[in-house]
Amino acid sequence: MIHLRYFLFLLAILLSIQSKSQSDKDVLKKIYTQSLTNGKSYDWLNYLSNQIGGRLSGSLNAEKAVKYTKEELEKLGLDKVWLQPVMVPKWVRGAKEYAYIETASQGLGAAKATAVNICALGGSVATNPLGIKANIVEVKTFEELKALGEEHIKGKIVFYNRPMQADLISTFNAYGGCVNQRYMGAVEAAKYGAVGIIVRSMNLRLDDFPHTGSMTYNNLPVNKRIPAAAISTNDAELLSTMLKLNESLKFYFKQNCKQLKDVLSYNVIGEITGTEFPDEYMIVGGHLDSWDLGDGSHDDGAGVVQSMDVLRLLKASGIKPKRSIRVVLFMNEENGLRGGNKYAEVAKQKGENHVFALESDAGGFTPRGFSFDCNDASFNQVLSWQPLFKPYLIHYFEKGGSGADVGPLKNSTNVLAGLRPDSQRYFDHHHAANDTFDAVNKRELELGAATMAALVYLFDKYGVNAISNDAQLKN
Amino acid sequence: MIHLRYFLFLLAILLSIQSKSQSDKDVLKKIYTQSLTNGKSYDWLNYLSNQIGGRLSGSLNAEKAVKYTKEELEKLGLDKVWLQPVMVPKWVRGAKEYAYIETASQGLGAAKATAVNICALGGSVATNPLGIKANIVEVKTFEELKALGEEHIKGKIVFYNRPMQADLISTFNAYGGCVNQRYMGAVEAAKYGAVGIIVRSMNLRLDDFPHTGSMTYNNLPVNKRIPAAAISTNDAELLSTMLKLNESLKFYFKQNCKQLKDVLSYNVIGEITGTEFPDEYMIVGGHLDSWDLGDGSHDDGAGVVQSMDVLRLLKASGIKPKRSIRVVLFMNEENGLRGGNKYAEVAKQKGENHVFALESDAGGFTPRGFSFDCNDASFNQVLSWQPLFKPYLIHYFEKGGSGADVGPLKNSTNVLAGLRPDSQRYFDHHHAANDTFDAVNKRELELGAATMAALVYLFDKYGVNAISNDAQLKN
Repeated sequence: MIHLRYFLFLLAILLSIQSKSQSDKDVLKKIYTQSLTNGKSYDWLNYLSNQIGGRLSGSLNAEKAVKYTKEELEKLGLDKVWLQPVMVPKWVRGAKEYAYIETASQGLGAAKATAVNICALGGSVATNPLGIKANIVEVKTFEELKALGEEHIKGKIVFYNRPMQADLISTFNAYGGCVNQRYMGAVEAAKYGAVGIIVRSMNLRLDDFPHTGSMTYNNLPVNKRIPAAAISTNDAELLSTMLKLNESLKFYFKQNCKQLKDVLSYNVIGEITGTEFPDEYMIVGGHLDSWDLGDGSHDDGAGVVQSMDVLRLLKASGIKPKRSIRVVLFMNEENGLRGGNKYAEVAKQKGENHVFALESDAGGFTPRGFSFDCNDASFNQVLSWQPLFKPYLIHYFEKGGSGADVGPLKNSTNVLAGLRPDSQRYFDHHHAANDTFDAVNKRELELGAATMAALVYLFDKYGVNAISNDAQLKN
Repeated sequence: MIHLRYFLFLLAILLSIQSKSQSDKDVLKKIYTQSLTNGKSYDWLNYLSNQIGGRLSGSLNAEKAVKYTKEELEKLGLDKVWLQPVMVPKWVRGAKEYAYIETASQGLGAAKATAVNICALGGSVATNPLGIKANIVEVKTFEELKALGEEHIKGKIVFYNRPMQADLISTFNAYGGCVNQRYMGAVEAAKYGAVGIIVRSMNLRLDDFPHTGSMTYNNLPVNKRIPAAAISTNDAELLSTMLKLNESLKFYFKQNCKQLKDVLSYNVIGEITGTEFPDEYMIVGGHLDSWDLGDGSHDDGAGVVQSMDVLRLLKASGIKPKRSIRVVLFMNEENGLRGGNKYAEVAKQKGENHVFALESDAGGFTPRGFSFDCNDASFNQVLSWQPLFKPYLIHYFEKGGSGADVGPLKNSTNVLAGLRPDSQRYFDHHHAANDTFDAVNKRELELGAATMAALVYLFDKYGVNAISNDAQLKN
């Protein structure tokens, strides 16, 4: 008798494991099929990119994007949709920039000007209205700059030309190794009396697109701020070669950008209220603002429409979440992070318990997996789900960063995550005029939305393991 | 004493494992770094695509490609480079095709023609010089066709409109589910007296490009052969909608293609002769021919230049292979497989022992891994190498097919393999006018070459497990 009981007990366990995993498998299949055969992300992105376009914080387009995405969320039959006010910086580019390399006249010949492709960095001051013409000094690092010192820098333009490291497999790591030139380059060069900076675009490919991006002056007084521009990789190579042949050549550039007063904008939020734990919040988001040169399809139109579709996919797959699931379209990731900070601030004020936050802000390319900022217990839980993702070729589950906008929600027990699409092409388009809709593949975008929805589904179903790493260490 | 000995023995094993795996890790790092920082594949592809272009078997461009790749291989300092003669079919497209949908005149209105995008399928006969105009019947399967029978088909054009299944993750599986319409469609429709066929392009995206590809007439007598064309997915949707509104509309098409006599062409082969087992051959290859509409960058310029670079990468990484490693650029994969068959035939005649063959013929996209056609012992050996590939995000190691050109080399003990890049965008370009150089990303291509070189290195170093599945079953 005891044997039979024991056998039945084992059988019951086996069947329950079987049915549980079978059912998760079926749900994931439903989610992916819905996204690939009836997804909305691509249509939304088409509108956002081709009917609205680049959405720099404070611009008319950013306003239009707020209005459009709110209306679209309202059509989904969510439990709530609202706007969260946030003041954002407003920087405008003004008339297109202009630059050339001037080689001095040789004998009877006139001075020769070679036009190059530049764009102002976001947040930069303008040049004076006639532009700046000065000698230019190439450096690869701040150490080189320091070694040259005021003696060799004063009155000149500094040309930062450290390329992204091609042998790194993750292009985000290569970006991380270069971006201080762009972000801190002006502050560092101003220390030695430079009159402007030109930064090699953060792009692994050799092409003619200059790539903008954020920069800082820290606490430099206004009269010490020097204009900063990015130059295309092709022209960075050209300038470097010409400097090797003739280090006394001059560089001219003119830009017309301006920092205006902060203006009112919004995060756009939609919610499916949880059936069992409505006070536990799980969010999924991307940022609605973009740079102004392209239409912001990959950065981060893709993340916006994928996040919107996560809520729709859950509904369409018949999932009624136990926890409250929000889509948050953050304003001003690119040049201020005001939206991300505001969302976390309000959440804190209201005492909302955010147990999970997922951001998609790495392009609409084929998803490979996720990066997790969480404790080991939660990470081990994720690893146990890995087999469910295998049919979808989702294999990358690593600890690491999440996303800039969800970062401020971090606490010792919750799970922050970032979608990790294939990164090879991302910086071909990032912050440049070729970040456009045609560079997004419909299926790749839809696979990303489904992969996000699948993770949200699993975390909602099984919960977030609320043991902090500290508590684990004590045990 | 015994304990110390035992300990030292264990330590020695551990150290040897450590040093062995350390060294493979270093070699892979070298190979990937070489490919990403100093790769030749992209430059070669640029020439093949932009200086030569589409390379249909028997064409002048195919001849140029033979000459160019032989010359480039000769520059690499291999032990041997040669051409292997092979007779290939020569089919020519002639003047561009033309097609329209004609809706009959309504009352006083004239008949209305809507132009659509078609292209002849490879191997098709021409229409008569004035073209064909006939009623058109849409079907999704051969079963539907059979059910309609001669009564509803005779004298009409058959329109095969089964779309690729979007919910399959591998687009090659979706292709496999549709391609019989293209390959066998004419034979099947001719049975019931159809006068021509129009096939929906094998493309998951909705766009205006018709996609060609091979077809057969089997042993149909020449006078029974009916012309066959592909129509773009957008126009297939249009035609289907218009047929629903008006099933008596007419379809007109004209094409001018022709099958000429076979001509002499070549496989291009280069070899590094093995230091220890020169009579064991490992080959890596792609196919040099392509369809004529685009420049054949993804199909299969990518596989050609990656395979060429595998031998260069091994040399540049200081690897002296124990076995003889050949790059084989096969002629005529697209419409005959004559090159693949010839290579295997000659290998058999000469008694050459081909222990390993790897083909890249799935596009120059980010590599995800390999598919293996081999016995379990060899496959388990591959699985033991998986951790070495993890830093390069290579995760897909599955049993399955290899490549059309290497298929004829199959025996019970050797390993055939196919590179498996990300498949999402492949059929956007496959056999169409937009299979062009600009659709290939340099890094994605280079990662593929490095991944292939890494696998070749490991199989050369550790050998191919020569136990056949039969022998394994006996044990």
